Amino acid sequence: MPEVKPFAIQCPAPIGDTGLVQLAHGGGGKLMHDLLERMVLPVLGNPILESRHDGAVLVMNGMRLAFTTDSYVVRPLFFPGGDIGALAVNGTVNDLAMCGARPLYLSAGLILEEGLPLDTLNRVLASMRRTAEAAGVQFVTGDTKVVDKGNGDQIFVNTAGIGLLKHALSIAPSNVCPGDAILLSGDVGRHGIAVMAVRQGLEFETTIESDCAPLAQPVLALLDAGFEVHCLRDLTRGGLATALIEIAETARLSIAIDESVIPIKEDVQAACEILGFDPLYLANEGRFVVFLPASRAADALDVLRAHPVSSGAEQIGAVGKNAAAIVTLRSRIGTTRVLDMLTGEQLPRIC
Amino acid sequence: MPEVKPFAIQCPAPIGDTGLVQLAHGGGGKLMHDLLERMVLPVLGNPILESRHDGAVLVMNGMRLAFTTDSYVVRPLFFPGGDIGALAVNGTVNDLAMCGARPLYLSAGLILEEGLPLDTLNRVLASMRRTAEAAGVQFVTGDTKVVDKGNGDQIFVNTAGIGLLKHALSIAPSNVCPGDAILLSGDVGRHGIAVMAVRQGLEFETTIESDCAPLAQPVLALLDAGFEVHCLRDLTRGGLATALIEIAETARLSIAIDESVIPIKEDVQAACEILGFDPLYLANEGRFVVFLPASRAADALDVLRAHPVSSGAEQIGAVGKNAAAIVTLRSRIGTTRVLDMLTGEQLPRIC
Repeated sequence: MPEVKPFAIQCPAPIGDTGLVQLAHGGGGKLMHDLLERMVLPVLGNPILESRHDGAVLVMNGMRLAFTTDSYVVRPLFFPGGDIGALAVNGTVNDLAMCGARPLYLSAGLILEEGLPLDTLNRVLASMRRTAEAAGVQFVTGDTKVVDKGNGDQIFVNTAGIGLLKHALSIAPSNVCPGDAILLSGDVGRHGIAVMAVRQGLEFETTIESDCAPLAQPVLALLDAGFEVHCLRDLTRGGLATALIEIAETARLSIAIDESVIPIKEDVQAACEILGFDPLYLANEGRFVVFLPASRAADALDVLRAHPVSSGAEQIGAVGKNAAAIVTLRSRIGTTRVLDMLTGEQLPRIC
Repeated sequence: MPEVKPFAIQCPAPIGDTGLVQLAHGGGGKLMHDLLERMVLPVLGNPILESRHDGAVLVMNGMRLAFTTDSYVVRPLFFPGGDIGALAVNGTVNDLAMCGARPLYLSAGLILEEGLPLDTLNRVLASMRRTAEAAGVQFVTGDTKVVDKGNGDQIFVNTAGIGLLKHALSIAPSNVCPGDAILLSGDVGRHGIAVMAVRQGLEFETTIESDCAPLAQPVLALLDAGFEVHCLRDLTRGGLATALIEIAETARLSIAIDESVIPIKEDVQAACEILGFDPLYLANEGRFVVFLPASRAADALDVLRAHPVSSGAEQIGAVGKNAAAIVTLRSRIGTTRVLDMLTGEQLPRIC
């Protein structure tokens, strides 16, 4: 694919514009990126945190552990294909899996708003339990806080997780190599559309369900089979495009992907066209990309496709050999464009 | 001290009263206890979670780790002696210490409300960093979410933590033994009064400062010196009284404490008398109790008093030999009464 230079002039992101937190600071795009780069990392930063991975890999007594956390503030709490409880389990399980770890233990931190129906809490807790059982993890510690009515929104869930690494690979964006194949585990955009549709009361011909699912099985299958995986990333806030841009920036390598092989379900594509969304930037909760040597791509696809959650896996592109940290997309009609991080926010509170 | 029977008749806690979450469900008292016992533990429960400890102790590859989480929703964010950032670090560090672990790694999950001044965020982050450095822990992973204005309250912070156990003791409420001495690390009630005073705009003659502080040093000093510690508990929501009641109930043993030796600063006592609070139920963020064999109590007090954070340690009571799971207090005038868990909430959003 031809190399394309990024635009020579770009406006700086408006982080200092208002001096106030904006919704887009939580959107997974450029504003959030800047908030982390300019405010959070300089203050809290250390070498482990700065690896910009989905989780931290810690070495304790010679054992390698993965440790990660995410808070969930999705609205509404329940949507086709999932709910905040399922998200809170699978999201953290998936971050551990993206470190190459077997997810084992979770914590649960609940922030409840005064007036939340106990029935709603019960449904969320039951979903957390079901999802944890399906993912093979246990809740081992937790905390509950209540805030007064009007100062929360029903229920926020934080989960942190611990997983165990049983291989010697270093799996991180900085380990992506020129020539690596990029595998995508399935169709993209469903979670974003599923949440947005129920939030806005939109009805499509079919009900679009979130892809919310645990991803450890196909990842561990690759690792157990000895594939030299360089990087893994699940495609949450900001979607496929943002994940690839972040990886390209961290690895300082170019990435080229081919739109025609990126799986997108027809109903998702149609909804995106009506609503003006780009499916490449929509959140997913059960999709990931794998970077590994191109020579093993076909075999790795076979492994992924053997698992239901990644049965639709495809090779969508490759890592280039030059140091321009950009992502280019060859469109269905053969043109090529640079994918840029969104400054704003397609869908707030998507997870 | 004489044994006192609990009241023969007690009203069941009104968890199902309204079918809605009430502020008191987060208060550390009876309603919260019931919420956990009746709803959370049955759904998420497993043997590790059910040990009712400040954190979980996990055995991984023969190594013992502690894992814990807490969310912080304190209002206001800043108060004499601390702020939400310091609380979020010390609270989780202290929960790890109460497992007998050396605190090592923290995660940070931020939920920001749209419109939060970035300066406020910066102050909180800077406090988190300072406090982490002082406590000898590192932030290694994190997450930031933004909720729309009116659906949060400036900033909520979740921290989870991992610590390492380097001894073979089992430290838990269930290991409390008849005859154990109970040591309290210092004066109680300051955090609750400090937060309440600034929230309500009250002014006392002196500024009462929160006791917010990391507790790992005196705990590790006890463990490193080989003391056979049976149980540790920091005195957060619900205060000294609730902590002791929970331990008595889990251990199924009686506890007797002596009011005259419980350190309470004069200004805290005066504030409590004016405001009608019982200092034994007020939240602390830098105090803990130790249960260990009475024969070692004096030596253990010497170890505790050598550390500034526990320089005011005292033996406040002992574990009885009968199986009535109650806590009795001998008052300054020599009468004895049973301490009961509060049903309601003294001070919501205290941590």
